[in-house]
This record gives sequence, structure tokens and C-alpha cells, in this order.
Amino acid sequence: MAVNLPAPRAADLRAVAGLRIGVAEAGIRKANRKDLSVVLIDAGACVAGVFTQNRFCAAPVQVCREHLMHGDIRAMVINTGNANAGTGEDGLVRARSTCIALAQKLELAPEQVLPFSTGVIMEPLPVERIAAGLPAALADAKEDNWLRAAEGIMTTDTVAKAFSAQLDIEGARITITGISKGAGMIRPNMATMLGFMATDAKVAPAVMQQLARELADGSFNRVTVDGDTSTNDSFVVIATNKAAHAPIASLDSDAGRALKAAMLDVARRLAQAIVRDGEGATKFITVRVEGGKTGEECRKVAYAIAHSPLVKTAFFASDPNLGRILAAVGYAGIDDLDQTKIDLHLDDVHVAVNGGRNPAYREEDGQRVMKQSEITVRVGLGRGNAADTVWTCDFSHDYVSINADYRS
Amino acid sequence: MAVNLPAPRAADLRAVAGLRIGVAEAGIRKANRKDLSVVLIDAGACVAGVFTQNRFCAAPVQVCREHLMHGDIRAMVINTGNANAGTGEDGLVRARSTCIALAQKLELAPEQVLPFSTGVIMEPLPVERIAAGLPAALADAKEDNWLRAAEGIMTTDTVAKAFSAQLDIEGARITITGISKGAGMIRPNMATMLGFMATDAKVAPAVMQQLARELADGSFNRVTVDGDTSTNDSFVVIATNKAAHAPIASLDSDAGRALKAAMLDVARRLAQAIVRDGEGATKFITVRVEGGKTGEECRKVAYAIAHSPLVKTAFFASDPNLGRILAAVGYAGIDDLDQTKIDLHLDDVHVAVNGGRNPAYREEDGQRVMKQSEITVRVGLGRGNAADTVWTCDFSHDYVSINADYRS
Repeated sequence: MAVNLPAPRAADLRAVAGLRIGVAEAGIRKANRKDLSVVLIDAGACVAGVFTQNRFCAAPVQVCREHLMHGDIRAMVINTGNANAGTGEDGLVRARSTCIALAQKLELAPEQVLPFSTGVIMEPLPVERIAAGLPAALADAKEDNWLRAAEGIMTTDTVAKAFSAQLDIEGARITITGISKGAGMIRPNMATMLGFMATDAKVAPAVMQQLARELADGSFNRVTVDGDTSTNDSFVVIATNKAAHAPIASLDSDAGRALKAAMLDVARRLAQAIVRDGEGATKFITVRVEGGKTGEECRKVAYAIAHSPLVKTAFFASDPNLGRILAAVGYAGIDDLDQTKIDLHLDDVHVAVNGGRNPAYREEDGQRVMKQSEITVRVGLGRGNAADTVWTCDFSHDYVSINADYRS
Repeated sequence: MAVNLPAPRAADLRAVAGLRIGVAEAGIRKANRKDLSVVLIDAGACVAGVFTQNRFCAAPVQVCREHLMHGDIRAMVINTGNANAGTGEDGLVRARSTCIALAQKLELAPEQVLPFSTGVIMEPLPVERIAAGLPAALADAKEDNWLRAAEGIMTTDTVAKAFSAQLDIEGARITITGISKGAGMIRPNMATMLGFMATDAKVAPAVMQQLARELADGSFNRVTVDGDTSTNDSFVVIATNKAAHAPIASLDSDAGRALKAAMLDVARRLAQAIVRDGEGATKFITVRVEGGKTGEECRKVAYAIAHSPLVKTAFFASDPNLGRILAAVGYAGIDDLDQTKIDLHLDDVHVAVNGGRNPAYREEDGQRVMKQSEITVRVGLGRGNAADTVWTCDFSHDYVSINADYRS
């Protein structure tokens, strides 16, 4: 189902020195599913995270935020099948209990463990099954286990999402590897459902949070499937600091820029993979808005287009019913928008000019582009020089089927 | 398909003295469809309108706004099959030409005619077909023609929408009749796709605009099908001033309050009819949000729930996956929302308390309510005393089918 998203191969994923991963089947919601993962981080690493802005944030998100303030994170425990969200005080106790269970086995303090949950909302987290599954997950732990981890965090995903990259910093070979999951309830606000990236680069603790935020802003915060911001969005960046170069103390240094660019490339591929595997997706749509006064208003317009059910169903149908895009531009919330300045391209086809149909536009040209599996919508606002991009997918019968049947 | 919305019967609709309606088949987009309506208003009437806030508003909306400033409106011309939106300068010329064509036949100034269009966006309006259809529409004009008019403005609607009411003011029997259309691209912002209401009550010109706005705010501005604000939303209120009572100079007078209450009741039924006939709708959902600091924040939360594809598909599936409602509450945009104060009822079933699952909640109770065709979601925010209500429908396979196939 996923749009131009081949499954990752173990051989393409590179281990990150200082980090081991183990996966087990704990029967959290259904039997015979990899639903429990542990990540073990060597001493000396730096960890930073960004989390959902949903005010109804899940218990594990609240616990992650607390534990990251303590610092010295050494392990993560991730379950699927249950989001531990909408669970009140009891949910917080269960998230903490999960951390305690793993901390005891690793002789760590509970505050050194980050918990992550994804799955159904408003059901009690089965802590006892997670605790019972930990020995198997720990026994499975090894550096070369990223593919299993990517599989171990899947829910309605049809394809595992994992990418690696390498670069050289001061003659040292640096590795970056990341995984993500998510297919529905995707309109990340700070991070995606779950995204984890690690590098063996040496990064000063002081810049880790900035790095995590900038990576999220350039990747996960630019994608949407259905506009539903999850209660559990979490994006975590780990620098194991194992590589042999001077610590990166600023993202504006040569090494900082090189590392961030390489990590951003991986983060974008992870974020775009979520859209390519969006529930029911048959097309991958890039929405580029140019000529705005600010980046923020460009994003507003891009999201209005990317969230419009009418635009998304037209893409599904390969129907160049492109007035729907203009309508979405119009209601995006720019009060002083001048419709006579609006320009619309579909890939190379110039559809609308000065707010009206381009006289040279021919329906068959729009039709040709709409049939593609990758389409770029380009809107010109004619108000300034700002621009921004959002990635999304179409809206198909399968989206309804998947979400009407999710729990059954 | 429509949810508990029987087709109106001609006998239930009451003529409004001073107003005649004619309908014809003009072949605007397809043959053999009632697609052209004219409304003829006797001299002495007052007319007010509210229109889409979409910045990409259609040409007829721009012309309506201009002509209403002139006052003394005597006729309206309404076509389906073509929205005359996203059509630039040429679209404005075509909208004006339509007014000129009707004005010539009626010996009026073009400024005394209001034009309305609904249908496909970004196609040139076939003015010549409209002009050619006018004689048949005019020949059909009579007071007792509301049902044909309700049918004449349908597009993807499956049921015509028309209601009447009567009340007494100072011993005079007052009639109110209204019609509406719309099923998709429905998240009115000031008005719906098309809504027309008329009364023979005597209303002072000075209060007409206030009346139109308050009616729209209490009805059409509280419904949503898919969150897509149309380019053509128009809601027009006509007082023919034929009734034998003193003119209503204030909506706060006894007569003003009585008239507004009766008109609001009709406006709500028209607005709710649009939701009941929402594209693919199988359920009618009332979203009530209470305990907010302001009505505005209650509406924000209600719309977040009403627009969430995940919530809407859960309703379609009759699946009490109610955490999705909590997630929507959380991302609705109230920055200082305290999730531990949130309360959720589904009809009489108390689902969540203090932001977590109600210990007494049983899934079978939620399941029972979810299977109904009419459901009330009631959210308590625990922040204040404001409340507001929004009406919406579920999101089904048929929504995708209808919108993927609309033009073909």
C-alpha cells in the first residue's frame, strides 16, 4: 500500500556504537506480535526529546518530560498496542511502574528510563505483561538490531521505517540511524507519533535540545496524514558520543552544520515515510506555498490544502478538480489575502493565474499529473518572499476502512 | 441516505406573501435537471445577507455584497452546476451579465438583482444558457413554489431542504419559510452554501442585517460536514413587510424576540438538514462543549471533535473508540487546558471523568449509544460557565466515493 516506500533491509541500516536494541513479543494487545522494545544506551550519551503539544498528552509523554530534566538517560522502553493516554492518574502510575521494572533489571534509577507507548487510547496499560516481556527483550539486545526495532514499534504501519546515513567529521566516520512509526492520527506538533534517531557523533549536552527541535521542525513538523495530532507524539535524539572528534558545541560550527544537515536528511526521510505509509495512502503529495509574507502564513495555507478532505479525495480519484485547492487557500485564515494574486501549479502545469483559470491550462495536462503517485502542488500567494513546504497523502476508501475497523 | 430527514411535502410549506419563485431546466451542466431558479420580490421588502469568509469568494458573492449596499433588492437568480468561483475578472463579468439579463426582463436596474451560483469551481459560467432559461423560470413563478425552489438548488443533496413556521404578532398571522442546500464543502463561516429565508413580517430596514447575522450565527455557523468552507456560502433573509402589524424596529422588543426565535428555529432546522444530508452521512452528531471560559473556546473544541477524521470514522463504525474524542479536545488549541478536569458523556453514558476513564463506564454502554443514528457528545472542560454546540455527521466510505466521483 505504501507509496514508493520499499521495506528497509537490515544490510542498509548501520549500528550506532554505544546503543543496543532488543525486541520481544509481550502479548500486550494481541499475541504473536513484536510489541515491546528496549533501547540500552551506554554511559556518556546525550539524549534530548520533543513531544506532542496535545494538551491531552499521554502518561508516558509526561514521564519522559520529567525524566529528561534529570538527565543521564540510559534506557528506553517502548510498547505498542496501548497508548496509555486518557488514563488519568492511574496511567501515570503505570508508566512509572514500567520504568521501575526496567530500571531494576539494569541497576539504574527509574529516572534514567524513558517510557513510550502507542496504540489504543483510554485503556489501562498492562504493566505486568510488559514486565514479563522485559527479560526476552533484554536477551535480544544488540547493536545491530535496528530493523527489528523499526518493526517492533509498528501499529497500523504497513512498512517498517528506518534509514541510515554516514558522514565524516574531522576524519572520523560518523553514523546516523533512525526509525519512526505512524500512519494515522498524524499531524505532529513538535514530533511524530514515535521517532528515534541516534548518532555516535560527539555532541555537547548544551546543544542537544536545540538539535532535536530543529530536526523535528524540519521534518516531522511538516507532515500530516489526517490532521489529528496524537496524544503520544515523541521524537528522541541520542548522541552516544563514541566518535573520535572534538565535541560539537554549536550547530553553527562547520561540524555542527554538517551533522545537522545529515541528520535532517534522515529525519525527513523518516517523516516522509510516515506519509508514504499514511493510512490508505495511494499518493505522496508535496504542498509548496511561496510568496507569503511569513513562513507561518505559508504553513497555514499548506496545511489547509493538506487537510482538506475534498482536496485529498480529488487526489485519490486523480480528478483535477483543482478549484478545491483554491477554496482551501481562501479559508486558510489569511484575512487580507488578495485572491487576484493567487497562482497555482501542479508539477509543471500552470493551472491558475491571478486567481482565475490559466487560459492556457488544459484539463488533460492536469489529469496527467493527477495520475502520478508523486505530485507537487505549488501555490503562489503574491504577497512576499517567504515559503514553506508540507508533505501529505491522499484520502481513500481504505482510510475509512482502516479507522472504522481499527479496534475490532 | 439522509439521517432522519424526510423529504418536505408541498403541503407543509407555506407561501410568503410578496414573494414568487420560478424554476426551470437550463442545462447548465447536465440536461433534464432543475438548475435555474428566480425569486421575485414585491416592492417594499427588506433584504439582508451574510456571505462566506473564504478569501477566495466566488464572483456572485462579490456581486451580492455590492448590490446589497445599493438596497431595494427585487429579484434573485440562482443556478446550480457551476459555482463561478476561481474565475477571476471574467467570472465577475459573467455574474453581472446574469443580473443584467434578469433585470432587463423585469424592467429593474441590474443592482436590484442578487446572483447565486453553486457547483463546480473554476469553470466559466455559461451565461447564455442561464439567459436562455430565464423565460421558462419566469413563466413558472408563483408564491406557492417553495418545494420546487428547494429542489431547484440541490447539487449533491439527496433530499430537498425546506421548512415553514407561523406565529402571531399583534394579532397578525406571520409566516416564515426557508430553503437550503449543501452536503459537502460545508463548514460555513457566516452562512451556508445557500440558504434563503423569507417572512411576511414587517421588519425595519435598520435591523435586517443584525437579524440575518444572528440567525446565521445560531444555525448555519454551527454546522460542519467536512470542515471545508465553501467559496459560495450565502444566506439571505427577506422580509416582504406584507403583514398587518407595526414594523419591528428592535430585535429586543417583544415582537422582535418572538420573530427571531421563530426564524431561528427554522434556520436551525435548515442548517441541521444540511448535516443530516451530509455527504455519506449515516449519523447526526450533536457536539456540546460546556464548562469553558468563553463560548469561543467551546466552539474551538467542538469543531476539533467535529472535524477529526478519526472521531468521524469511529462514529461511522459505531465503535466507542472514545479516546479519539479526548485527543481532539487536547489539540483543539486551548494552551492552558488541564486534562485532569475533562469530563466526557455520550448521551447519558458517563465515559470519562477527571481526564481518565470513568471506573463505572462499561464498553457495552458506549456501544449502545454509538449504534444510534442521533448521538450527543458532551464534553466538560471544567474551566468556567460558557458552553456552545456544533452539529456534524460521521465520515463514511460514501463520503470518499461521492467526492472522488463528483465531476465524473
